Amino acid sequence: MQNKKAAYTLGELAEIVRGEVMGDPDLIIRGVSGVKESRSDTITFAENPGYLEAAEQSAAGAVIVPDEVTDSGKPLLRVGNPRLAFAKIARLFVPDVFYKPGIHPTAVVADSAKIGQNVSIHALVVVDEKAEIGDNTILAPGVYVGPDVKIGNNTVIHPNVVIEYNTIIGSNVIIHGGTVIGSDGYGFVTDEEGHHKIPQLGNVIIEDEVEIGANVTIDRGTSGPTVIGRGTKTDNLVQIAHNVQVGPENLLIAQVGIAGSTKLGRRVTLAGKTGVDGHIELGDNTTIAAGSIVTKNTPPGVFYSGNPAHDHREELREQAARRKLPELLKKIKQLEKRVEQLELGD
Amino acid sequence: MQNKKAAYTLGELAEIVRGEVMGDPDLIIRGVSGVKESRSDTITFAENPGYLEAAEQSAAGAVIVPDEVTDSGKPLLRVGNPRLAFAKIARLFVPDVFYKPGIHPTAVVADSAKIGQNVSIHALVVVDEKAEIGDNTILAPGVYVGPDVKIGNNTVIHPNVVIEYNTIIGSNVIIHGGTVIGSDGYGFVTDEEGHHKIPQLGNVIIEDEVEIGANVTIDRGTSGPTVIGRGTKTDNLVQIAHNVQVGPENLLIAQVGIAGSTKLGRRVTLAGKTGVDGHIELGDNTTIAAGSIVTKNTPPGVFYSGNPAHDHREELREQAARRKLPELLKKIKQLEKRVEQLELGD
Amino acid sequence: MQNKKAAYTLGELAEIVRGEVMGDPDLIIRGVSGVKESRSDTITFAENPGYLEAAEQSAAGAVIVPDEVTDSGKPLLRVGNPRLAFAKIARLFVPDVFYKPGIHPTAVVADSAKIGQNVSIHALVVVDEKAEIGDNTILAPGVYVGPDVKIGNNTVIHPNVVIEYNTIIGSNVIIHGGTVIGSDGYGFVTDEEGHHKIPQLGNVIIEDEVEIGANVTIDRGTSGPTVIGRGTKTDNLVQIAHNVQVGPENLLIAQVGIAGSTKLGRRVTLAGKTGVDGHIELGDNTTIAAGSIVTKNTPPGVFYSGNPAHDHREELREQAARRKLPELLKKIKQLEKRVEQLELGD
Repeated sequence: MQNKKAAYTLGELAEIVRGEVMGDPDLIIRGVSGVKESRSDTITFAENPGYLEAAEQSAAGAVIVPDEVTDSGKPLLRVGNPRLAFAKIARLFVPDVFYKPGIHPTAVVADSAKIGQNVSIHALVVVDEKAEIGDNTILAPGVYVGPDVKIGNNTVIHPNVVIEYNTIIGSNVIIHGGTVIGSDGYGFVTDEEGHHKIPQLGNVIIEDEVEIGANVTIDRGTSGPTVIGRGTKTDNLVQIAHNVQVGPENLLIAQVGIAGSTKLGRRVTLAGKTGVDGHIELGDNTTIAAGSIVTKNTPPGVFYSGNPAHDHREELREQAARRKLPELLKKIKQLEKRVEQLELGD
Repeated sequence: MQNKKAAYTLGELAEIVRGEVMGDPDLIIRGVSGVKESRSDTITFAENPGYLEAAEQSAAGAVIVPDEVTDSGKPLLRVGNPRLAFAKIARLFVPDVFYKPGIHPTAVVADSAKIGQNVSIHALVVVDEKAEIGDNTILAPGVYVGPDVKIGNNTVIHPNVVIEYNTIIGSNVIIHGGTVIGSDGYGFVTDEEGHHKIPQLGNVIIEDEVEIGANVTIDRGTSGPTVIGRGTKTDNLVQIAHNVQVGPENLLIAQVGIAGSTKLGRRVTLAGKTGVDGHIELGDNTTIAAGSIVTKNTPPGVFYSGNPAHDHREELREQAARRKLPELLKKIKQLEKRVEQLELGD
Repeated sequence: MQNKKAAYTLGELAEIVRGEVMGDPDLIIRGVSGVKESRSDTITFAENPGYLEAAEQSAAGAVIVPDEVTDSGKPLLRVGNPRLAFAKIARLFVPDVFYKPGIHPTAVVADSAKIGQNVSIHALVVVDEKAEIGDNTILAPGVYVGPDVKIGNNTVIHPNVVIEYNTIIGSNVIIHGGTVIGSDGYGFVTDEEGHHKIPQLGNVIIEDEVEIGANVTIDRGTSGPTVIGRGTKTDNLVQIAHNVQVGPENLLIAQVGIAGSTKLGRRVTLAGKTGVDGHIELGDNTTIAAGSIVTKNTPPGVFYSGNPAHDHREELREQAARRKLPELLKKIKQLEKRVEQLELGD
């Protein structure tokens, strides 16, 4: 794996995240750290002034703080969003594990494939006919890229990923190991003889800045594309069926499943294990709690939970009421007796 | 990928699907299309007369219609089941992406393996000792076929699928990318020292005409086989545990999980994310709604939902009642007060 | 695949499982069997005296029985735990499918990797820079081992598994096909521009005697490790997020998902499809029923179910009460009328 630049001065880091240094700008930083694992040459962060004391008492050489902090015993890097600045600085120190430009001699690359500049094609990769791989893109060991697939620039495909024919993948995309893109959608016509396969003639389009987790499955569309919108991030073991349109900047947590032809707006968040029925639409900024089943369209901005999913506060009220149900049954029996007594007394 | 026959006359298509042409039988058709994507050389379909107008107003060269339609401004192909005829015609135009007879020089095929006629063994495939591959079968790149595995004819195994030793796979089977067949069943004997592995000595049998989705897992049996019955279709990320007997023509939608030794009848449908407990039996034509957990045997023909799954109409009534629970709690409190008043008034 | 020793005498088996023979110690045993599949040269077992008759009437050459059985028409092997003894004996006869010491010529092994004694590195395996593989360990075809990964002794990695950089795997570990270890944890900082990736700088540690199912995903920690404790066994399609600490001897059944930074005690059992929220702790010996969602810490020894998970007996009472809800609604309406009548009668 490539060794990135091993050290930055605090002043250099301030420039990169557009922050301001308080203290020695020539302080050498060799990595990021949580408060606990910090060393004199690492930088840590305090998301708000309440966390500052712990950061100051740590071994860290410097602390990233919100703008309002102006005083400390330690060198500070003041920014608008400390967590974001920390993420950006951390990225400077991550090893580019699969950065190794060139084509490994054991890779099988079709003559008709178009390979960009500075591409890393690792051992035992297959790039099939007429596939196009953009500049600086990385195909880790064991990746399969099917015929007519197009992949943009600066994209990283982790080991043993399968990308079937005609898939289009944008730039700055990350796809984790074992994921399968472009498998056939699940479509059959059933008669007395059995289930007859409906050919899946569409493809998958993955837009720029998308990250896809490990062992995810995304099926090709029936005639048009299945789409994963710009900046969307999926966790592991997510299932996206044919013709689904996932909007931009969605967060799809682990083991989510979305049935065919459903459309998700912008910034939809589906917590882990959520299932979404087919042929419905989820409005922008819809949030669904873990383990829910969504069966209907949702208006924008709602927070739903349950099976079937509905307003989360209502669900909580129902859960609370459900807890009282056994007791309630007794109460009603007593009430019936009391009413009977009253009726008899008449 | 192979170019299939690029064009058919309307008359040829009618013969293939046993339909009847109204209009020019020499019309050239070069593909299928939905109404929206149609061109003058594509054929579309109208499932019933209600959809006919849209199909007639499309750019399509011809329309597949039910028998009862006898009149149109466009050439017609009249059949008993337009959707089925469309699926069959669509299949004529799907590219055989992995059809490439021969053994790629980078494939590793044991001398003791038996390879049929016209088999496509792609780059970086491993076929282990004494495995048998039937005629016209396709092993896409990165597939692993273990020792003593038997695969029938006309079967397509997509990239990076793992088929472990002794598995038996029939003819006309499709297995999508990343799927693992024949992993060890999950069986342990626990004592104070820990969990001791029970060796899994059985295998997996996948019958003819089965389709298995992407990143599915099917475990080998403990001593006998795990069986996937003829014509069953599973979606992606489905888990089938050891000793499970899946009957013929089941539909197992994405992320379904079936625990050990359970037996499913004919034409069972499990919607997405359904879980089925071990050691139970589901009757023929059982249908389970998405996200349910099935804990008991089901009689034939039922439609169940919920956790634990029970009659779907009952579940809907309970859901409706649950929605009223918080309001109900208030009502009962009021009733109690009123009864108390009455009692005091006595 | 290697042929193990094909036959043992009953006396040899008794020594291996520390049992006692009644009958001929020179009887030749060539395999284990269930009662139904038994032959004169197989050994079966009767877990308790109630099962003895069936075992005695079978074709089996000998029967493993609990110590209290002292008399039989068949040769006996008396032990404290017949099921455990059966598992141990069965293991003697399982073929070591992937045992083939040496490095296959198509494997790509970095010069800087350290390979132990008697290691089997199969076709099309990649072992990246500075990885260390312990003695007798097996890497099946298509496995990827990343830079700086350390794997102990006697470990078996099944086909197409992905192990990313810096992962540490112990001895006597089994990892089934298609599993991905060390994918990036799911962490982002969101602002108006989108979701910014938080680099995942930690790793995964898998302790000794662990077994991981097929197509499982285990993410690397954000800065520290994600840990799978000694002797834990996971089933297939399980998701373990970044920073999770799974304790020793856990049983995580198929399709379980555990969100980030959660900590599981010793001998926790999560039944199939259970989801566990992030940043919580489950006490030792916690058991969760299938399909539950765990949202809070659990004390040791509890048996929980439901969404949100709570005491299983309470959940059962609530389920029973829920079944009566529609009827209850009617009852309350009637009560209201009766109370109204009484009130009017006043």
